[in-house]
Order: sequence, then C-alpha cells, then structure tokens
Amino acid sequence: MQPSRTSRRTFLKASAAAAALAVAKPGRSDAWGVQLPRVDGERLNRILAGFRSFGGTPDGGTTRLAFSEEDIAGRAYAAGLMRRAGLDVFTDLAGNLVGRRPGGDLGARPIVIGSHIDTVPQGGSYDGQVGSAGALETALVLSDYGVALRHPLEVVVFQNEEGGKTGSRALVGRVAPFELEIETASGFTIREGIARLGGDPDRLAEARREPGSVAGFLELHIEQGAYLEAAGTQIGVVEGIVGIRRWNVEATGVANHAGTTPMDQRRDALVAASDFVRAVHEVATTTEGRQVATVGKIEVQPGAPNVVPGVVRASLEIRDLSMAKIDSVFAEIEARAISIGEARGVAFAFDRFYESLAAPTDERFRQIVEASADALGYSHSRMPSGAGHDAQSMAEIGPVGMIFVPSKGGISHSPMEHTEPEDVVRGAEVLLGSVLTLDGADWD
Amino acid sequence: MQPSRTSRRTFLKASAAAAALAVAKPGRSDAWGVQLPRVDGERLNRILAGFRSFGGTPDGGTTRLAFSEEDIAGRAYAAGLMRRAGLDVFTDLAGNLVGRRPGGDLGARPIVIGSHIDTVPQGGSYDGQVGSAGALETALVLSDYGVALRHPLEVVVFQNEEGGKTGSRALVGRVAPFELEIETASGFTIREGIARLGGDPDRLAEARREPGSVAGFLELHIEQGAYLEAAGTQIGVVEGIVGIRRWNVEATGVANHAGTTPMDQRRDALVAASDFVRAVHEVATTTEGRQVATVGKIEVQPGAPNVVPGVVRASLEIRDLSMAKIDSVFAEIEARAISIGEARGVAFAFDRFYESLAAPTDERFRQIVEASADALGYSHSRMPSGAGHDAQSMAEIGPVGMIFVPSKGGISHSPMEHTEPEDVVRGAEVLLGSVLTLDGADWD
Repeated sequence: MQPSRTSRRTFLKASAAAAALAVAKPGRSDAWGVQLPRVDGERLNRILAGFRSFGGTPDGGTTRLAFSEEDIAGRAYAAGLMRRAGLDVFTDLAGNLVGRRPGGDLGARPIVIGSHIDTVPQGGSYDGQVGSAGALETALVLSDYGVALRHPLEVVVFQNEEGGKTGSRALVGRVAPFELEIETASGFTIREGIARLGGDPDRLAEARREPGSVAGFLELHIEQGAYLEAAGTQIGVVEGIVGIRRWNVEATGVANHAGTTPMDQRRDALVAASDFVRAVHEVATTTEGRQVATVGKIEVQPGAPNVVPGVVRASLEIRDLSMAKIDSVFAEIEARAISIGEARGVAFAFDRFYESLAAPTDERFRQIVEASADALGYSHSRMPSGAGHDAQSMAEIGPVGMIFVPSKGGISHSPMEHTEPEDVVRGAEVLLGSVLTLDGADWD
Repeated sequence: MQPSRTSRRTFLKASAAAAALAVAKPGRSDAWGVQLPRVDGERLNRILAGFRSFGGTPDGGTTRLAFSEEDIAGRAYAAGLMRRAGLDVFTDLAGNLVGRRPGGDLGARPIVIGSHIDTVPQGGSYDGQVGSAGALETALVLSDYGVALRHPLEVVVFQNEEGGKTGSRALVGRVAPFELEIETASGFTIREGIARLGGDPDRLAEARREPGSVAGFLELHIEQGAYLEAAGTQIGVVEGIVGIRRWNVEATGVANHAGTTPMDQRRDALVAASDFVRAVHEVATTTEGRQVATVGKIEVQPGAPNVVPGVVRASLEIRDLSMAKIDSVFAEIEARAISIGEARGVAFAFDRFYESLAAPTDERFRQIVEASADALGYSHSRMPSGAGHDAQSMAEIGPVGMIFVPSKGGISHSPMEHTEPEDVVRGAEVLLGSVLTLDGADWD
C-alpha cells in the first residue's frame, strides 16, 4: 500500500535528504522503512518511445533534425512531460527548453540534468533521447514521491547538439556570431532555428550562465561505443570527454599519365597517403592508452582512373583525455609521414584546423555515480567519452558528471542504434540516485 | 641547284619507288645521285607552332577542346596546309578532316597517316599536334619533290581523340549510338560536335571503312612518358598500344563514431583500402615486365573527419601489351585484397567496367620504322605505348605502325609538355621514310 501523496511528500522531504547523506538508493526502503523514490521503468521507456512519434522512421531510427518540425513537436512533447512533473517550463534565449522547480534552500544553486533530442539525418532513437527521457523521468519521480530537494532542479533539453552543441555552448557564452549564419541539416540557419524554437538569436549573449552559477550538471547518455557491451558492464562512469585535434593533411606528389609512367618513375600521392593511413592506424593502435586516431576523409586530385594521383587531401583526427597525449601521438605520426614522404618522393603538410579541449568530469561526481550504481547493485567501470556531449560545454560553468549505458554493438548515428530497455532504466536509476546524493552532499 | 618542278617529278616517280625497295633515306642521294625528298625542319616546326594560334595559352600550353571554336579554326588551318600539299580535302561523315592524293597504282589501297589536334583542357602543344604536323609536312614534301606514290595517300586529322577517340573509332564502326549524347569538355555533345565539324551524326555508320580497305596506318606521336628521354634514345618503335582493364573496387567495413570506437574494434574501410593501394603498387612494381597498375580515384563514405570510414570506392586500372598479363596481375592483386579483407574485417568486391584490347603494331611496320631510323642514323628502341591512340582504332582495319619521339620529363596533358624541335624533325623524317618504304614494299 502506498502512502497518500500528501503524507508521502512530508515523509520524503526529510528522508530523501537523510538518505542522500549516505547514498540514495532509489526504490529501496531507507533506515526508517520509508519507500524511497524509484524510476518507473515502464513509463520511462514509454516516454522514450514517445519521442519516436516525432521523426521516427520505419527502420527503428529517427530523423529529428535540429530546428525541424519534428524537433519543435518533440520539444512540445518534452515540455508537456515537464509540466506533468510540476516544473516551470520556458524556452531560454538560446532556444533551450528548460523545466525548473525551486529548491528548499534559497541560497542553493541549481542541479542541472538533461541532454538533447535532435538527431543526425537517419539517426538513431537513443542518442540524446535516453538522457532526455531519463531526466524527464527523474523529475516525474521526484514529483510522484513528493520529494522536495534542497537545490533547485533544472531539466534542460539543449538545442542542436548534433550540429555543434549550439544550445549548451550558448549557455556558456561560446557561440561566435558567424555561427548563426551556418545552414544546418534542416535547411535553416542556426539564427533561424533559434527563433523557430522560441529563442532570440539577437540576444544570445544574455542566455549565458556565469561560471559557478550551477551546483553541477549530470547527463545520462548512451555510450555510442562497444566498450560496456564488450566488457559486460552495466554503467559507464565517464572520466571526461576526450579532447580532439584535427588536421588537414596534404600529400603532394606528381600527377602523371597512368599508362605512360613506369611504376619506378611515379611519385604517387595516393600510394604515399596509403602508407600514411596505415601509419596513423598503427601508431594509435600500438601506443599504450585509449587514444584513437582516424583518417575519415580523403580526396584525390585529379581523381581519374587513368591518372597517377598528384595530390591527396585527407583529414587526421586524434582524441584522448589528455591534450599532451594527443600531441605526442601526433608527433609520432608526423615523424612517420616525413619518412614516408622521403621514401615515396611525396611531400606531406599538416594544417591544424580544429581543437576541442578535453573536459574531465568532476572526481566527486564520478564517486557519486559509482556509489549510486553500487547501491543499486549495478556493475560499473570508469571510461572516457570519445564523443562530445553537452556536458562538455557545461563543464565550463560547473562540475559535471556523466553516466553511460551500453549501446548495442557500439552502433550510433544509425537507425541500428539500440540500448536495451532495462539498460535505459538502470541509467535513469543511477541518474536519480546521483541527483539525490548530490542534493544531500555537504560540499555544496 | 634544284631541278625544276616538272623534271623533279619525272625523276622521282621512278627513283622514290626504286629507293623504297631498299630503304628510303630522305634527304640523301640515291644510287643514281638523285636528291631524295627530305623534311623541311623549319617549316615543320612553323606548322606545329602555327597550331598554337588556335587555343595556345601564355604558359606554352594549348586548350583546343574537341568541337570548340579553336578546334574548328585549327582544322581549317590544317585544311589549308593540305591544299597547299595538293591534297583533295574533305570532312568525312564522322567529322574527320581528310586530305587525299591519288596513287599511281589504281588497285592499291591507301596509305593513311595522321593524328589529332584536339587537346585536353589546359593541355600541351605537342600531343597529337606533332603527329598531325608531321603528316602534313610529309604531304608537303611529297608535293615539293613531286613524288608520285604507288599508293593513294590520306592525311587524316581525327576528331575528339581526347574525348574517346571518336573520330578514329567511327572510321572503324565502333561508336555506339549512346555516345553521341555524351557531353564533351567543350560543352557540346558528340552529336553536336560532329555536326559542327561538318560531319553528319545521323549517317555515322556510313563513315565506316571496311577491314582490309587500307594498306596501313602510320602515326607519329610524342611518347608522353619518360622512357626515351631517360634512355637517351631518339626514336621509339612502338610495339603496340597496351590493353587496359579497369575495375570499380569497393571495400566495405563498418562506419562508426571515430571517438567512441576503440582502435581494436574498428573495421575501417580506408585502412583496408590503404593496404590495397600499397599492394597494387607493389605487385605492379615487383612483377617482371612493363605492366602498370594504378589506383587513381578513391572515395570514402561517409567521408567525415569524425567518422570511421565504412565504405571506400576506388578505381583499379591495369595496362599491358598482353591481355593475359593483365589478367595474371589482376589475379595476384585480387588474392592480396582477399587476404587484406580477412585481416581487417573488410569485404572487397571488384566490378570490371572498362576494357580496351591491346593493339599490337604490325611486325613489318616496326621493321620499316627501324630501317628508316637506321638509314637516318637515329638511335631507336622498341617500346609499348602506355597511352591510347587513334592507331589503336585503325588496327581494326589494317596493319599499323607508330613512331614515338621523346617527351621532356615524360610530362604530358600539361602546359609543360615539350618535345625538342629537332626531335619533332627526326620523327617526321622517320615518318616520311617509312611512308616511302611502305609504298615500295612488295607485300602490298
């Protein structure tokens, strides 16, 4: 038998805080025998599936491009759930959807949770959406159980994560004016898109939150890799979001007639570039650590079957939790390129065009996530996030934590993207437990 | 003192044929002390330079796209020279410019000489043009010296060699109807182009010459490779035009997030394709013979710096004088691809999309070219032609021979294309000598 809503609220106001001082265990009874809040797994997966009404495709995937009709409808759906959870709902000047509830301690800064719901074209139904559904369910559970937190709570559905984390970056004052004119996959510019969502692109600067203005940010997300699944681990405790450096690589040989140029007289830029691609793969694979290095793009000039390639342009990307490690891996790759170039009569040039600094999560948040998983009996493991996330932006204004759940086969950005319903529930339970624990932690 | 035109003609009618029974030595005296015809080197190089009035560029190159205004003007210039050489000039139904003089033996089939004057965009001033100028000069010399040949002589400036040897292929009935609708570099379709040159695209079939209808075809051309220059040899005696086979190669791995997919879990199509490119180069380089193999085109999907390549599409081209050799080299490459695919978890598929059969020159023609070069004191060497030429089409209706002169640095299809004036003269002298020898040969 469940207590009435009013009595539950009275009880839990105290008990949640008390439990949080130790570790909140959603769904268990606390020392006083009170039923602690727990995730409604069925509802959670229904919310997640509900998003598929907006851009879901017959193959199980979702195309909900930022700023599209589907995005706008999906956000309205999320706003309705926020209202059901008793949150005050508004769209900020950057176009992020925010649901807010006050905290018991008037001086406490908000705990922010959330993710995104926009997808890449022909994307999956889990990326961003699991974290958004998990945050919405967390707010619903707190409402159901009448839990009054010490901190204000904000649930945020960031805008345009896939197109450059625009919403979260605007929140930390990082969107450059020129970006507003970029045309996104939806066909709308970011400027138009922000206005479509209800933001004001001309007042973007006012969307900025000050560093230190939040108690912390917690994001639940699918792993998008196969690490957890391969290890049979249920929860990933994210150590940080890897830094990224990208280079344009140009290999210049001599274009020549493929019929009249003997093999030993060629300075074939593609043969040299092929040596390079192999070297990149080998250096990244054999160096100790979890760095990854990728050549994802390659173009040949003139690019005809009957012409020995004269110039190859390729991309090089290296990611690691340590920027210094990225540098040392690059140094090794560059040295290999020089040797390859000498052997093949081809000149290599590198031009760095992109950098994203590594964003470590807060050690206290990692421990809270671990303790929450432990309390629930879930296996967990620390791991880097190879992908970028809104948490990376939020790390600029406060401590962040991230919770990963397994992605089937590590497949993401694809209709084949999948996370088991029970893993979705486990992730949301750890998120709820972490929010409760964070709310009761004495360091904020 | 030169004999008058009339007396010269009388003398030479007999002496040329007599000399040809041995080996014609242009510019020398024959056994009876008669001055034999010789190339006017200065005029020849003036004719060649004259073509540069039509599409020549300040960098020394030429852009005279087939069917363009420059092409039409260049052909009018060639027609004028043909008339000066006393030839009957007409444009055949395929748009080839033909200059014809009758032979003394009414039953003899024509000796055909010539090449093309169209160029690739930003092409050179020698490819095709040296052979065309050489053929025109040959006709002028025969006229100057009043040489009456036993065979009719035809000088042909083929149309659209660079865009697919359309003119020479039409002459042997090999142009498929769909080709007429292909848009060429000039912006005109081949159908439009043929009409622009004065041919009739609707009566193309009538342009066809019957197999056995010509005594032979001789083409002078620049090597477009660096073999002669590197060897210090003056004349290349072409053994044949290499056969070509081309494949579309598809390597299918698994596209994945470049941040979240550990190195050891990748099935990177580009890493496998890079192994493949190297294998192609290695097999072609280490196998005995003069085969060449090239990967000139490569495309990656999805082709983004932050995505592990899922699919790579590339071209593979193999050339050799022997089609069987092409097959055996391909078999070795294919076997390597299978091993690579197994090691990298990537599937390779090959789809042959183009074939051009090897066209050997006639052994008797090779000997005539060699004997002509010997008579002139020029060094010579047998060699394959790695590039395709109009002679390749003509081989379908009669015996062919080809004479190569050195290309500086082997550079072709570029404004830097260059052949020394004295090499141009040597080539034309061997052409003239070969025509005279062929005219007198007793096997036709």
